[in-house]
Amino acid sequence: MVQIKDMLDVEQTIRPDGRAVDELRPVRITRHWTEAPEGSVLIECGKTRVMCTATFTQGVPRWRKDSGLGWVTAEYAMLPRATSERTDRESVRGKIGGRTHEISRLIGRCLRGVVDMKALGENQIQIDCDVLQADGGTRTASITGAYVALADAVAWAKSHKMLRANRQVIRDQVSAVSVGVIDGKPMLDLPYVEDSQAMTDMNVAMTGAGAFIEIQGTAEHRPFTRAELGELLDLAEKGNRELQAMQRKALNED
Amino acid sequence: MVQIKDMLDVEQTIRPDGRAVDELRPVRITRHWTEAPEGSVLIECGKTRVMCTATFTQGVPRWRKDSGLGWVTAEYAMLPRATSERTDRESVRGKIGGRTHEISRLIGRCLRGVVDMKALGENQIQIDCDVLQADGGTRTASITGAYVALADAVAWAKSHKMLRANRQVIRDQVSAVSVGVIDGKPMLDLPYVEDSQAMTDMNVAMTGAGAFIEIQGTAEHRPFTRAELGELLDLAEKGNRELQAMQRKALNED
Amino acid sequence: MVQIKDMLDVEQTIRPDGRAVDELRPVRITRHWTEAPEGSVLIECGKTRVMCTATFTQGVPRWRKDSGLGWVTAEYAMLPRATSERTDRESVRGKIGGRTHEISRLIGRCLRGVVDMKALGENQIQIDCDVLQADGGTRTASITGAYVALADAVAWAKSHKMLRANRQVIRDQVSAVSVGVIDGKPMLDLPYVEDSQAMTDMNVAMTGAGAFIEIQGTAEHRPFTRAELGELLDLAEKGNRELQAMQRKALNED
Amino acid sequence: MVQIKDMLDVEQTIRPDGRAVDELRPVRITRHWTEAPEGSVLIECGKTRVMCTATFTQGVPRWRKDSGLGWVTAEYAMLPRATSERTDRESVRGKIGGRTHEISRLIGRCLRGVVDMKALGENQIQIDCDVLQADGGTRTASITGAYVALADAVAWAKSHKMLRANRQVIRDQVSAVSVGVIDGKPMLDLPYVEDSQAMTDMNVAMTGAGAFIEIQGTAEHRPFTRAELGELLDLAEKGNRELQAMQRKALNED
Amino acid sequence: MVQIKDMLDVEQTIRPDGRAVDELRPVRITRHWTEAPEGSVLIECGKTRVMCTATFTQGVPRWRKDSGLGWVTAEYAMLPRATSERTDRESVRGKIGGRTHEISRLIGRCLRGVVDMKALGENQIQIDCDVLQADGGTRTASITGAYVALADAVAWAKSHKMLRANRQVIRDQVSAVSVGVIDGKPMLDLPYVEDSQAMTDMNVAMTGAGAFIEIQGTAEHRPFTRAELGELLDLAEKGNRELQAMQRKALNED
Amino acid sequence: MVQIKDMLDVEQTIRPDGRAVDELRPVRITRHWTEAPEGSVLIECGKTRVMCTATFTQGVPRWRKDSGLGWVTAEYAMLPRATSERTDRESVRGKIGGRTHEISRLIGRCLRGVVDMKALGENQIQIDCDVLQADGGTRTASITGAYVALADAVAWAKSHKMLRANRQVIRDQVSAVSVGVIDGKPMLDLPYVEDSQAMTDMNVAMTGAGAFIEIQGTAEHRPFTRAELGELLDLAEKGNRELQAMQRKALNED
Repeated sequence: MVQIKDMLDVEQTIRPDGRAVDELRPVRITRHWTEAPEGSVLIECGKTRVMCTATFTQGVPRWRKDSGLGWVTAEYAMLPRATSERTDRESVRGKIGGRTHEISRLIGRCLRGVVDMKALGENQIQIDCDVLQADGGTRTASITGAYVALADAVAWAKSHKMLRANRQVIRDQVSAVSVGVIDGKPMLDLPYVEDSQAMTDMNVAMTGAGAFIEIQGTAEHRPFTRAELGELLDLAEKGNRELQAMQRKALNED
Repeated sequence: MVQIKDMLDVEQTIRPDGRAVDELRPVRITRHWTEAPEGSVLIECGKTRVMCTATFTQGVPRWRKDSGLGWVTAEYAMLPRATSERTDRESVRGKIGGRTHEISRLIGRCLRGVVDMKALGENQIQIDCDVLQADGGTRTASITGAYVALADAVAWAKSHKMLRANRQVIRDQVSAVSVGVIDGKPMLDLPYVEDSQAMTDMNVAMTGAGAFIEIQGTAEHRPFTRAELGELLDLAEKGNRELQAMQRKALNED
Repeated sequence: MVQIKDMLDVEQTIRPDGRAVDELRPVRITRHWTEAPEGSVLIECGKTRVMCTATFTQGVPRWRKDSGLGWVTAEYAMLPRATSERTDRESVRGKIGGRTHEISRLIGRCLRGVVDMKALGENQIQIDCDVLQADGGTRTASITGAYVALADAVAWAKSHKMLRANRQVIRDQVSAVSVGVIDGKPMLDLPYVEDSQAMTDMNVAMTGAGAFIEIQGTAEHRPFTRAELGELLDLAEKGNRELQAMQRKALNED
Repeated sequence: MVQIKDMLDVEQTIRPDGRAVDELRPVRITRHWTEAPEGSVLIECGKTRVMCTATFTQGVPRWRKDSGLGWVTAEYAMLPRATSERTDRESVRGKIGGRTHEISRLIGRCLRGVVDMKALGENQIQIDCDVLQADGGTRTASITGAYVALADAVAWAKSHKMLRANRQVIRDQVSAVSVGVIDGKPMLDLPYVEDSQAMTDMNVAMTGAGAFIEIQGTAEHRPFTRAELGELLDLAEKGNRELQAMQRKALNED
Repeated sequence: MVQIKDMLDVEQTIRPDGRAVDELRPVRITRHWTEAPEGSVLIECGKTRVMCTATFTQGVPRWRKDSGLGWVTAEYAMLPRATSERTDRESVRGKIGGRTHEISRLIGRCLRGVVDMKALGENQIQIDCDVLQADGGTRTASITGAYVALADAVAWAKSHKMLRANRQVIRDQVSAVSVGVIDGKPMLDLPYVEDSQAMTDMNVAMTGAGAFIEIQGTAEHRPFTRAELGELLDLAEKGNRELQAMQRKALNED
Repeated sequence: MVQIKDMLDVEQTIRPDGRAVDELRPVRITRHWTEAPEGSVLIECGKTRVMCTATFTQGVPRWRKDSGLGWVTAEYAMLPRATSERTDRESVRGKIGGRTHEISRLIGRCLRGVVDMKALGENQIQIDCDVLQADGGTRTASITGAYVALADAVAWAKSHKMLRANRQVIRDQVSAVSVGVIDGKPMLDLPYVEDSQAMTDMNVAMTGAGAFIEIQGTAEHRPFTRAELGELLDLAEKGNRELQAMQRKALNED
């Protein structure tokens, strides 16, 4: 880490929005943003704004019945004008696109990665992440915000006697952040303008203990070396530690 | 239920939320709520919260080409946890439900009712109304908020030289409000708890000049008389006049 | 168009088809038009021709089970060449259009408005309205014809001991008619040629007792005043009284 | 069943409806049944009742452009209560079933089999066959009725100068009839009650010249021999000759 | 085309691939081609290559429950590059085309035609025929190959005690072959190049006993006479006898 | 399970199929497996068997027109009985599942990662990967096989003068392999039985130069540390080097 910071300090790279290469955009996590859901969080990472809700329901889908285990699943979507050009609604087109499917599955896996399904019992938590405004990093913001909504939903279930208070349903925190290589330079937390010019793009979900839940690195435009991978993971670790601090802070404010 | 009924029986009817029968819920209209759309409004009517965006694009759909006329259309949707029980996404179900279709069409007609298509020229404005939280009156809140977003989009197009500044594209204001008969008593602006027990339910869209753009009254549970219709329209007129004052106030704050 | 306009200007307005402004088109109601359904009606209003069937089945949809209540629902559709230009089948397009949804829901609400669900018990009546030829007023003809099919299906169920003979399942008649303002003049029962030039268009469903079940007035092209609303409702009342007489006549002929 | 079987055992087989084994059900062909289509025919074969329309449009689908050839296509559908049990609409289910597809393709092939695509030029004729009431033989009735609608549409196009009067677009007549083996006995024109107990079932489309356009024989329940095939084709020839006489008679009545 | 035509004119007709008019293409039937299915067959008829699998499952679809009868069904599909031009996947288009439906139903009927549903008991066999390479005759190759997969699945079920060993579930063999008239000459087993120029095209499924299960003859381009039908059936009988010998040979090799 | 676990405990870990932890399953790459496609490869990795075809077409999708750049895209699918239990066809269900979408996108990105879109010019290559038999690692086998099909399609285009011979369209090789942690032990190339018990599962696509195109590591069941990541990448590098040698060998055999 120190090495990277040192290297980065020499050139003193400045990004379009004035951030240092290892600096997150301003993050704001608003809990209880709407009243109906068991967990409802608005997360803002720079201009990216995602509404994350967690729905707790007793019982599990049929294929999971009588297993004694719970289930956590996620759905991601973008409002039509989250983006600078309007995108048609998937409901109107009558089918879900590949990108939506891919991201929904990613979010679901990350959250399941920190939930003890046995402790959850035969209950289901459905996560919905709806992007109100998109400026890069919507999938990682979704994961980070969804964790807080999940924590609130579990707390709600405990306070409503749907889960025993002493069960440790959530085994660890989880947050995620994007990193990428732009113009040969590894950087943390890419907004859209950077993301679209990145040669390599990686999303990293980490636990509070510092282990990985999911790594997705893609280099459609220029393959990346193992050394670059190392640098990217260093940045991602730094970003995730900071995001997790904000998650904890938000969850302590009640 | 019993409590509400009892309350309604007293001379001076007081509603569950303490309002008088002819009183609107608190309304808040926030313009420029997101940055990407040409018009972006968050409208809050009590707990009902709808994000209304207006997308201005040059050109019209194929069937409208070479007519010299513009087009305005609308799409309405609810986020899964806008409601107390989670509703499945229409994108996941692969089809749009009848209610969504019905409301989208209503919103589109109401806005077209105040737009001069010749003045708009061959340009299109797409309205998106996404309900973030639903507590009754989501379709009327959508119309009221969408009008403000529409006005902003037209102003944007003028300032970007896509419409000539002196064209009067918008002929009049439009707002909408719900009214209904509960326990024999006509009332203004029903939240969910009242809406679900209303015998008659009516949505009324009016222009600034006080004429009707759309009246939809439905009495699945008990037919209504012409006298009741008159009382409901009186309430709706009062409500719409107040909503229009708020629209004007919002549009004057820049 | 010019011809029509000129005709409308004269004192004694005569319509393209020679009717007075408050005159219905010729109506013919043929019961038992096909043999399979429990109720089967062909209704003809001028050139508009709709086949209305009522299917009586024991049991209700799952969400209604164990409520002790029945259910009435409706589906509306147009054959491809009901219109002068062929319209693609919704089955081929793979989805139901907004207009179809909107009208199906309207028909369903109107019929439910006169059915006592408790008296119907846990039975379902499905109404199908298929437009064989369309010349304006297809949705109102559907409601008027569907009522007769519904009455036949209830009678069938009673004669087959699926409903007790003394239960009053149908509380009142219901019929519907369109009215509109053409060139400033309110008129009753608009055929396609008039409907397409109407500034205001309203569909009114009434009970035999003269109360409203549904009012849908839309003024995409020119808002309407409360005075015009009054005149339109007068015409609609006259039209509905006449339609109800024809319904009763048809039901008495066995 | 037993009764029918017993009846069939007697020397002079009499069918449930009193017909001889080689006798068609009563056929009625009504031309100009609705006004909008270029060809509109109601065909009734016993209780089976199909509305056949032909839509003539200038131009051909894209894949056929600049070929100098025309195109004829067909769509078949059943109204929900054409049958004794209501069948769900394919538009509501969101997809077309295999049976519908199979029959639509059959009808299209049969009509194309008698049309000279060069003489038709780059014009399209769309056939719609909507079954209003089904009592067996709906696909063969559709073909027989559609031929008459097709002939009317071609005549319409000629009288409207969209086809030159001297072009022989239709090369020959086409009609179709079902035959089947019931209880070992070949029979002509099966209504539903017979069709459902047939071991072998065959649909035969023939030209006026007596050649075959399509033969579809299926023996899910008991294979058939070549001798039986011969007998079935004899019956089909007789039936088709009679149907073609009725087609000619209908077309001569104007 | 000219070359082929010239060749066909000579006394001893020789086909593009050198075969006599009554000669099958080389056939290869490979059993146990994959390991997972209860029956798995690769059938090659010339260049046409179809993977046929049979899935045996205990229980039947809901509509068949408590009937004591089994069920056999089939699904046919083509891989995108089975053909010389790539065809879009039906999964991507979101719906199954008419041709696929038609062929799937044909295969299902042919196999059901030789299965004793009572002997099968309440078990289901699902046939999947996936065309890996298409050079004409894919539907008939599917039927011929599927029969072998079906036989293997029944044997598997017997050896796994899911069917009693002494039950004769399969009553007879079934195979299918295409025949057609090219340039006035009836021919057996048409590859794509011949199929596309055939005036008449017929698919004939026969049992080992020599009876017909299904005959589908279509003559979109030139009607066929009864004499031609006879010749085509002669060729089809010869072809099917040879195919059945190959099926038996394959089933004897274990 | 117990047996496997015990085996893994011994010093020299032996896997269920006898392989060492860093050993690939036997791989077979068959080029020109079918004749129609421009590239057609059957790849077998143990029992996993995938048919990979590459379709070369001139021109690009509309959104890419006039860019001077080519396009490469991929679609992945499984035949219904590739798996031990039959899975329903996505064409029958009417929609593509999330897993299919996710894998199709992965394959597309990996191949685009080694193609020079400028050198390809405005041409498109569509990759189809159809899994005939699935035993783990189907997505990585697809990538490895698709690369060979892609190379053949490019060679085909050059020999057919659709690409200039001296253009280096393919910049590098690409192959992919799965690695995972089972019972704490990193292993290479997991078959289904191992994959289903892996705590961490990673797919790694590498170029011939040893750089990464895509890394997807997921740890739904137990997060993984950076040290484990290192070990997994070492295994993946070894596997990919071996797979690339086999790709080269296959491409040299003509």
